[in-house]
Amino acid sequence: MLITDVDAFILAMPHITDAADGTQDTFLVRIRTNTGVTGWGESDASPLVSLAAYYCPMSHGNIINIRESLLGERLDTPEDVRRLYQKVRRQGLDIEQIDHAYSAADIAMWDALGKQLDEPVYHLLGSAIAYPKLPYASVLFADTPQETLERARGLRRLGFRAAKFGWGPMGKHGADFDVDLVAAAREGMGEEAEIMIDAGVAWGTDYETAYARALAFSPFRPTWLEEPLLPDAVDEYGKLKALNPPVPIAAGEGAARFRTAQDILCNGKVDFLQIDVGRIGGLTPARDVAVLTRNHGAIYVNHTFKSHLSLAASFHVFAGESMFRYLEFPAAASDLAKRLVAAPLVPGSDGLVRLPRATGLGMELDVSAAKEYLQPVRIELNGKVLVEIDHFD
Amino acid sequence: MLITDVDAFILAMPHITDAADGTQDTFLVRIRTNTGVTGWGESDASPLVSLAAYYCPMSHGNIINIRESLLGERLDTPEDVRRLYQKVRRQGLDIEQIDHAYSAADIAMWDALGKQLDEPVYHLLGSAIAYPKLPYASVLFADTPQETLERARGLRRLGFRAAKFGWGPMGKHGADFDVDLVAAAREGMGEEAEIMIDAGVAWGTDYETAYARALAFSPFRPTWLEEPLLPDAVDEYGKLKALNPPVPIAAGEGAARFRTAQDILCNGKVDFLQIDVGRIGGLTPARDVAVLTRNHGAIYVNHTFKSHLSLAASFHVFAGESMFRYLEFPAAASDLAKRLVAAPLVPGSDGLVRLPRATGLGMELDVSAAKEYLQPVRIELNGKVLVEIDHFD
Repeated sequence: MLITDVDAFILAMPHITDAADGTQDTFLVRIRTNTGVTGWGESDASPLVSLAAYYCPMSHGNIINIRESLLGERLDTPEDVRRLYQKVRRQGLDIEQIDHAYSAADIAMWDALGKQLDEPVYHLLGSAIAYPKLPYASVLFADTPQETLERARGLRRLGFRAAKFGWGPMGKHGADFDVDLVAAAREGMGEEAEIMIDAGVAWGTDYETAYARALAFSPFRPTWLEEPLLPDAVDEYGKLKALNPPVPIAAGEGAARFRTAQDILCNGKVDFLQIDVGRIGGLTPARDVAVLTRNHGAIYVNHTFKSHLSLAASFHVFAGESMFRYLEFPAAASDLAKRLVAAPLVPGSDGLVRLPRATGLGMELDVSAAKEYLQPVRIELNGKVLVEIDHFD
Repeated sequence: MLITDVDAFILAMPHITDAADGTQDTFLVRIRTNTGVTGWGESDASPLVSLAAYYCPMSHGNIINIRESLLGERLDTPEDVRRLYQKVRRQGLDIEQIDHAYSAADIAMWDALGKQLDEPVYHLLGSAIAYPKLPYASVLFADTPQETLERARGLRRLGFRAAKFGWGPMGKHGADFDVDLVAAAREGMGEEAEIMIDAGVAWGTDYETAYARALAFSPFRPTWLEEPLLPDAVDEYGKLKALNPPVPIAAGEGAARFRTAQDILCNGKVDFLQIDVGRIGGLTPARDVAVLTRNHGAIYVNHTFKSHLSLAASFHVFAGESMFRYLEFPAAASDLAKRLVAAPLVPGSDGLVRLPRATGLGMELDVSAAKEYLQPVRIELNGKVLVEIDHFD
């Protein structure tokens, strides 16, 4: 089939705050083909900056927009999707935003191809079986240990067997306070549950303090300690790991390129590599990172804080690896994110999440709900309208 | 002083082609303060995508646009520029384009601060003396060795004592042809000149072929072999260097972050690290990379293919290090790039280039020339005009 339409849409809640909630707006791309198939994808990125990468004028041979690289192209096999990933990145070599922006299109192409070939995306990515995953709820630490205890108890009552507690006050009130937070998370979730600790880069480049905290947290058996250091502090991650901390280390959510993921894995020596398919350029590079992680003996985990369109897309990448057990499962989201797909993923009675038996990503976009959040956009440059979108057709 | 205005401008030639000429358009940022000082900077990036990073709406606490982070801020000391670099990247953490886009603003702030304090920028960056540099002309290989010979002779007649010959047919017609190209460059430039070879990532990840070419080129004594491999093939650069090639290796022009530069330097083990201040986020991170490179025992070189505003900005970064001898000097440029500054840099009678004795960057923008290339831009989102620029005021 041939790609006939590549359309980008900006959706947003009526009121946006500076809260750490990435679901307040989103960037969607729709791919349509001459066979009548439609695929959808979502980036975790600035919608306007990403949209500009679809419509910007050519600057020279290395700044050519994404639509121009895709329109009219053949899309018949997984090899076509991989070829187009290379083409878009080659022609957009000098557009820094290319990976964030292209993520949605790459995901939409896998979705479209799966629907056309009557296959789930994980098959196209080379996996025969989709294993169920253990969802962990992602929440923030409360301001105090006591409130964190209540929050953890609430998640346990909801049936979560695993939960990640993030930053908030972590690292701001000294070692004892940090340990009390972790102790509260463990107590609230119970002895059987898995708890993850997300330090939110609390210790910057100070790997010795990060090591000291890992030691202090270890009696509470966290599954991992996430982002104790800055994403670019790769050498310091390596030094932290060289000290042999008794808690596994996780990082990688900001990786926008294969090399960045490889760098934090191979030089930072993290135990868990967390990849966001909406930032790294879609399923194509994410799948390569998953294979690299497996070969390296580490664990791949999704990073997801968007709608279940992104959650399902993330899942397909590592559905086939039973040793990659965990699925980040956003436990809170805006109405926009909640309503974007018709049937979100839900844990089964065993507490595990499964991919639906369906073709493509297996997620149906609720177009009428999406319409309510559409933001009309119009860009005019040098007297020419580059893009004007005011409705879904 | 306080930052009162942050304005972004898109300039372009009337006709843009897919030629490898990065001077066909440009992205300028002007910073103005309450003391009446004006600073200018230029990015080597997609103008429209970069502009979007100055005006995009907030998505959450990690997607806040550059103007919002800068307007009203204090700008009194070099420490302020460094603080604002951290602030902009923190608030724009999830905008991938942030480094490309911010480059122009960072450069403009150093320019404004230098003018206010009556100091050249290299003083503010910690260098007491600005050493002259050896400019090398940057040209492409011609299609054949014979035409390359003519091209090299032409540069020699123009007085260039060094020249870099880039890609074109390199790597496309086998080893003998590649060697003939290099031999022609050497013959045309003469025995005394320095020649650099830019392979334009001709051998992808194939470090063994890159090594074989370095061996074959070594009788012609190139100063370096540039980008024999893909920018992200850091492991393969390391493997190439482990083979001890008899020609120094250069790379790094695509680095948009400090870590990317550090990665190719420390893990790729390149001998020459080439940094574009219009991509890496401006002079602030570029200066840190220059210090890292010096401490590492490697050589820092600018990568520049924009106007002399960018060339001067690049120069200030490493003006103070006499062992960093080379200055990439664009030998061809569009009328836009040529006319953008009133008095371009020119080599002295000794063939070396010096920074002008002046404050700030030492370059005066020719505003009336710039006006001829201004592209009016208007972005409307959800019924609100985010930006409308149709003139220089």
